[in-house]
Amino acid sequence: MVNALPTSRADAVSLDEADPLKEAREHFELPEGTTYLVGHSLGPVTSTAKKRLRETTDRDWAEGVVRSWNSAGWIDLGAAVGAKLAPLIGVDPKDVVVCDSVSVNLFKLAVAALPLAEKQDIIVEEDEFPTDRYIANGLARTVGAKLRMVDPGNDLDVLREGGVLIKSAVNFRSAAIVDIAAYEKVASESGGVVIWDLSHATGVIPLDLAEAGAKFATGCTYKYLNGGPGAPSFIYVRRDVAERVETPLPGWLGHAEPFAFETDYRPAEGVLRFVAGTPSILSLVALDGALDAFDGVEPAALAAKARGLGDVVIARATGLGLDLQSPYDSAARGGHVSLGHPEGYPIVRALAARGILADFRTPDTIRFGLSPLYLRYQEVWDVMDVLEGIIDGRLWDRPEFKIREKVT
Amino acid sequence: MVNALPTSRADAVSLDEADPLKEAREHFELPEGTTYLVGHSLGPVTSTAKKRLRETTDRDWAEGVVRSWNSAGWIDLGAAVGAKLAPLIGVDPKDVVVCDSVSVNLFKLAVAALPLAEKQDIIVEEDEFPTDRYIANGLARTVGAKLRMVDPGNDLDVLREGGVLIKSAVNFRSAAIVDIAAYEKVASESGGVVIWDLSHATGVIPLDLAEAGAKFATGCTYKYLNGGPGAPSFIYVRRDVAERVETPLPGWLGHAEPFAFETDYRPAEGVLRFVAGTPSILSLVALDGALDAFDGVEPAALAAKARGLGDVVIARATGLGLDLQSPYDSAARGGHVSLGHPEGYPIVRALAARGILADFRTPDTIRFGLSPLYLRYQEVWDVMDVLEGIIDGRLWDRPEFKIREKVT
Repeated sequence: MVNALPTSRADAVSLDEADPLKEAREHFELPEGTTYLVGHSLGPVTSTAKKRLRETTDRDWAEGVVRSWNSAGWIDLGAAVGAKLAPLIGVDPKDVVVCDSVSVNLFKLAVAALPLAEKQDIIVEEDEFPTDRYIANGLARTVGAKLRMVDPGNDLDVLREGGVLIKSAVNFRSAAIVDIAAYEKVASESGGVVIWDLSHATGVIPLDLAEAGAKFATGCTYKYLNGGPGAPSFIYVRRDVAERVETPLPGWLGHAEPFAFETDYRPAEGVLRFVAGTPSILSLVALDGALDAFDGVEPAALAAKARGLGDVVIARATGLGLDLQSPYDSAARGGHVSLGHPEGYPIVRALAARGILADFRTPDTIRFGLSPLYLRYQEVWDVMDVLEGIIDGRLWDRPEFKIREKVT
Repeated sequence: MVNALPTSRADAVSLDEADPLKEAREHFELPEGTTYLVGHSLGPVTSTAKKRLRETTDRDWAEGVVRSWNSAGWIDLGAAVGAKLAPLIGVDPKDVVVCDSVSVNLFKLAVAALPLAEKQDIIVEEDEFPTDRYIANGLARTVGAKLRMVDPGNDLDVLREGGVLIKSAVNFRSAAIVDIAAYEKVASESGGVVIWDLSHATGVIPLDLAEAGAKFATGCTYKYLNGGPGAPSFIYVRRDVAERVETPLPGWLGHAEPFAFETDYRPAEGVLRFVAGTPSILSLVALDGALDAFDGVEPAALAAKARGLGDVVIARATGLGLDLQSPYDSAARGGHVSLGHPEGYPIVRALAARGILADFRTPDTIRFGLSPLYLRYQEVWDVMDVLEGIIDGRLWDRPEFKIREKVT
């Protein structure tokens, strides 16, 4: 818990007044009449994202058309946006590029990493994020590697045998943070390789991949980075490693000279070789604009506030009959708090009816995403008032929610 | 040549007046003061694409935020947009989905097709579009198949041995059209499989994949479909074939029940299993809007007009010292005309200085893209006046262009 845990609404308001991130909220156009606790799923729109999209359609596409590949910098945009988010993951701006989805990028990186690993095993935990598990399965089949689907908590032991582990840095259910440096130490001692999925980590927990010795990472940009629905994902590959590996998907834009239209593929420098086809420019410019909300923001301040907001949730959830499914210790916790309740789904519906957007994961998990850039302590305080009222029955007409509805 | 070849500007104007597609031009916001002959590279913006993007940012993303996955239909948008373009390739609307880039989709399809093929060979011609060649190389390496890089014109012979051929339906240099049915016949007789790249074909030549017996196809949507820079690509897989194959990239959105978050991957029905990660919604909605320009348009009318415009170029290019690098016979030609000239690059620059946008391919090719939805006969007539003037020196201050500049 942080020292500054508020014990009244007035305390929460004071924390907001002292919040070093309070101006960042002005970038966002939040849905009216709601408190948005689903930023761990899809971040809200910023005015700069909208502005970049408008400029791109009305000027660059409409007037420049094909000339904008050069004049509007589209051709280098994946690298430029990668450079912009590099500080959030603690790496050199030249070592990040934005392209494709997390699913596709996990595939590229894990296949590229296999020749570096002692054993041709693809390791993934049973409770890893679904797309990571499915991709692990698909790529093992495709390249003829062995799939090691391991029990939760056993991945480090199996990594010690020397394979390629696909691992989320923050668990999508519990928000538990993984010690990246500890995994990298095991990997370097054993001849294993880790592919980090930073989807639930980027923009909300302190990340220093370079210091931790990470070699490969990818992550989603539409959660805490607010890049928009289906915004492309980023790829990080450590410079010295990138020069030694090959992408299984060598598209034209990962070529050293894309416009030379050479017969043979020559990989671009470093991580840029992992670009495949033409990137979705409209999605890229929205992300580019969204990242402006991080201008002048210290990554440490993001983490501190996300933890502080989570601590408010946890402190006030005590005694409400909820099962804390996230780490109590804020230093071990990412940007969301998961609370179990047998009536979790109707509770999420009851919250929504009162303008509080949260999400639900089967069988019983209420997830509160605590995006530090735009949420306020006072909002979270108020959310907990409502949650309390729902659970104790004051704010919840229980019968109408009794039937467990299908989650869609 | 079509019967209606104009012999004067007045003839060209008459053809425009009789043009069944003339109203489609109203969808487009063409760059002022230019004639846009680069629609084979990047189509111009339509007002419906802009409108869809505005609605998506200002309403669906800003107000709906994460709820819009359901309420705005984002979750099914790839299938909905695929269904919308299905008539342009002559297949059932249920058998097309839009996702990822052509590069990524070629990889998915060719890997999926290998178990169906008699031989584990990946076949591609030396002069195939670069990304197709590079991807063929990358995937052969990844799955341990043999790469057969064959001389132009030899692919049918090699396909007869029974491998997987990656083939453009329209050549990106010459615009020569390939006989899809003839290739499929050879494939079905020999145990080979063809993966069609329809990038330069869709929206401009008549395509009837179902009739031709095609099994697998992908193609770009930012050329003649005007989907916007880096718009996602489409995938077609014949229904009975789709149910028998597996994607190497089984992302969460290709799962039968994406939101069930099941431990094991179960493929979605038919072609939908080829979706991988979360699609770039902003790029998808722009494409969705752009396709409105095809409402009520007969695919045959598109082809007829593209041919007619190409015939004007070819007829008027005669005697200008240009080397016709495209088929003279319009029935054998796609949507662009390639003209060789030793000073091709400076000529393209001289055209641009007069508001005529065309493109150049090394070593000497001037390409005129003749997008039938928005170009007029009279514009193409005027272009040829300018080209004539440039080549005969009246409109070209030759010395300033003499130095061969680097193509970017």
